[in-house]
Amino acid sequence: MSLSLKILGTSSATFTKERNQTAQALKSNSSYYLIDCGEGTQIQLKKYSIKTNKIDAVFISHLHGDHYLGLFGLLSSMSLKGREKRLSIFGPKGLQEIITIQLQASQSCFSYQIDFQEINVDTITQIYQDKNIKVEVFPVYHRIECYGYKFTTLPEGYKIIKSTLPKNIPLIKIKNLTKGKDVILDDGTVIPYQKHTTPPPAVATYAYCADTRYALEILPYIQGVDTLYHEATFTEEFANRAETTFHATASQAGLIAHQAQVKQLIIGHYSARYKTNEVHLQEAKVEFDNIIALNDGDLIQI
Amino acid sequence: MSLSLKILGTSSATFTKERNQTAQALKSNSSYYLIDCGEGTQIQLKKYSIKTNKIDAVFISHLHGDHYLGLFGLLSSMSLKGREKRLSIFGPKGLQEIITIQLQASQSCFSYQIDFQEINVDTITQIYQDKNIKVEVFPVYHRIECYGYKFTTLPEGYKIIKSTLPKNIPLIKIKNLTKGKDVILDDGTVIPYQKHTTPPPAVATYAYCADTRYALEILPYIQGVDTLYHEATFTEEFANRAETTFHATASQAGLIAHQAQVKQLIIGHYSARYKTNEVHLQEAKVEFDNIIALNDGDLIQI
Repeated sequence: MSLSLKILGTSSATFTKERNQTAQALKSNSSYYLIDCGEGTQIQLKKYSIKTNKIDAVFISHLHGDHYLGLFGLLSSMSLKGREKRLSIFGPKGLQEIITIQLQASQSCFSYQIDFQEINVDTITQIYQDKNIKVEVFPVYHRIECYGYKFTTLPEGYKIIKSTLPKNIPLIKIKNLTKGKDVILDDGTVIPYQKHTTPPPAVATYAYCADTRYALEILPYIQGVDTLYHEATFTEEFANRAETTFHATASQAGLIAHQAQVKQLIIGHYSARYKTNEVHLQEAKVEFDNIIALNDGDLIQI
Repeated sequence: MSLSLKILGTSSATFTKERNQTAQALKSNSSYYLIDCGEGTQIQLKKYSIKTNKIDAVFISHLHGDHYLGLFGLLSSMSLKGREKRLSIFGPKGLQEIITIQLQASQSCFSYQIDFQEINVDTITQIYQDKNIKVEVFPVYHRIECYGYKFTTLPEGYKIIKSTLPKNIPLIKIKNLTKGKDVILDDGTVIPYQKHTTPPPAVATYAYCADTRYALEILPYIQGVDTLYHEATFTEEFANRAETTFHATASQAGLIAHQAQVKQLIIGHYSARYKTNEVHLQEAKVEFDNIIALNDGDLIQI
């Protein structure tokens, strides 16, 4: 099963006319998973025709405003539209209180149930699984408590090659083939799974590293993923500023991608001082070749 | 002194592709006064090239998200830009706590001082005055505690007609003319103010009625203002829904404008069910003629 990722914002704290604050919508089958939710995320979702009712879970990295300020408005809009489906929300301690206090102030209640889970981990930890994906959370290294998330599609079975399959196999036994087991018919005939199936597609993995300094500590968590999102707030010209603000340069993002041997790197969260991301791309490419410098609206296949 | 009003949002709670949530920027001289601040207001301010450092005070009507969710992001951006000037914020009880808890969560402090004043009044009450305007607050009638604001420019002096003014008047005595007083020179000559000045320009008045049901109770507060903003969430077709949700129809907005004998009515806060505001305009015009059905980006002279 593949994943696709709609990029809803690529600015850092100061948005620009072309870039909204951080948010990404990860899609698996017909479900969406929202990763961070800067101010105006619900406006971006509407712009890109993503129905909020398809969002099954929200993952917030940290409590700097540009990563969560759009959340309460989004939750309210879901309620106004009459959502009934439960929604899972993950984020650092404090997020639930912020949502609750705003809900109390409006003397409202939502039309649906929220399952809050506050994150407090010091190593990679699974926190979510549904019919499409499992999600693990891991610490990254920013000015305040901040988490990355790793999304992995669930393993699928062997795929039946219908055209070669003998018609006399009972339906109930076909399941064995999808598990990679041979089927033995009542007359003793062996139906080898290798002849009548293709191997399961590989799982797809996506690691989102939120806001972080260049941190070798995260390598074990993101090793070999299909797609890595790493922030690249600054170019080398402002490497010192990256260090003091617990952000990364594009070059450092490239270096981490190389060190973690990922297949594809995507970068974003650009400082508003940059009119384009061309220098980011050039500098990251020195370290790692397969890279996309994101813009709002990009659709990434994972 | 005149006022001008930039309309930053005209949707109700559910924004649309064409309409942002409620916010208005009132301008007097070179100062701006922000009235309500729905999500994305800072994006609208940038779009319309209004510098946030020119905003001297913020007036929030009530704590439904579509009227204040953009505030924390705006305050944060002001700080990122290094604002030093104090900022006054007015709003119902609860607003300060929401801002404070978000600031604590981000482990930040702002670069400037905020003067919070929580509103709790049951009749019209002056709450603010600076070199440009005075502001009064009054109760309106919505589902939760909600306030309207009345903005009045400060009275100006008589305007000197320089071309007719005798040259032998001491500078210090000219001030008397601007106060509408005659000047008597040392030789006994009387310099009549009526001959050498034009009367002071009238003060300009703007009343913003936020979200409210049709309420005769507000008439004394808005009587005869130059421009009245009244919400017009619904058309007559949904008059019942207006009543149950403590909102108004366009027709009721027109009726209030007529009853309060205002000079100009502007309406907004349209339900997302309407593709245009043409029916709102038609229905309001039956009750009151000088009316503008607002769209995002409109500039209103008061």
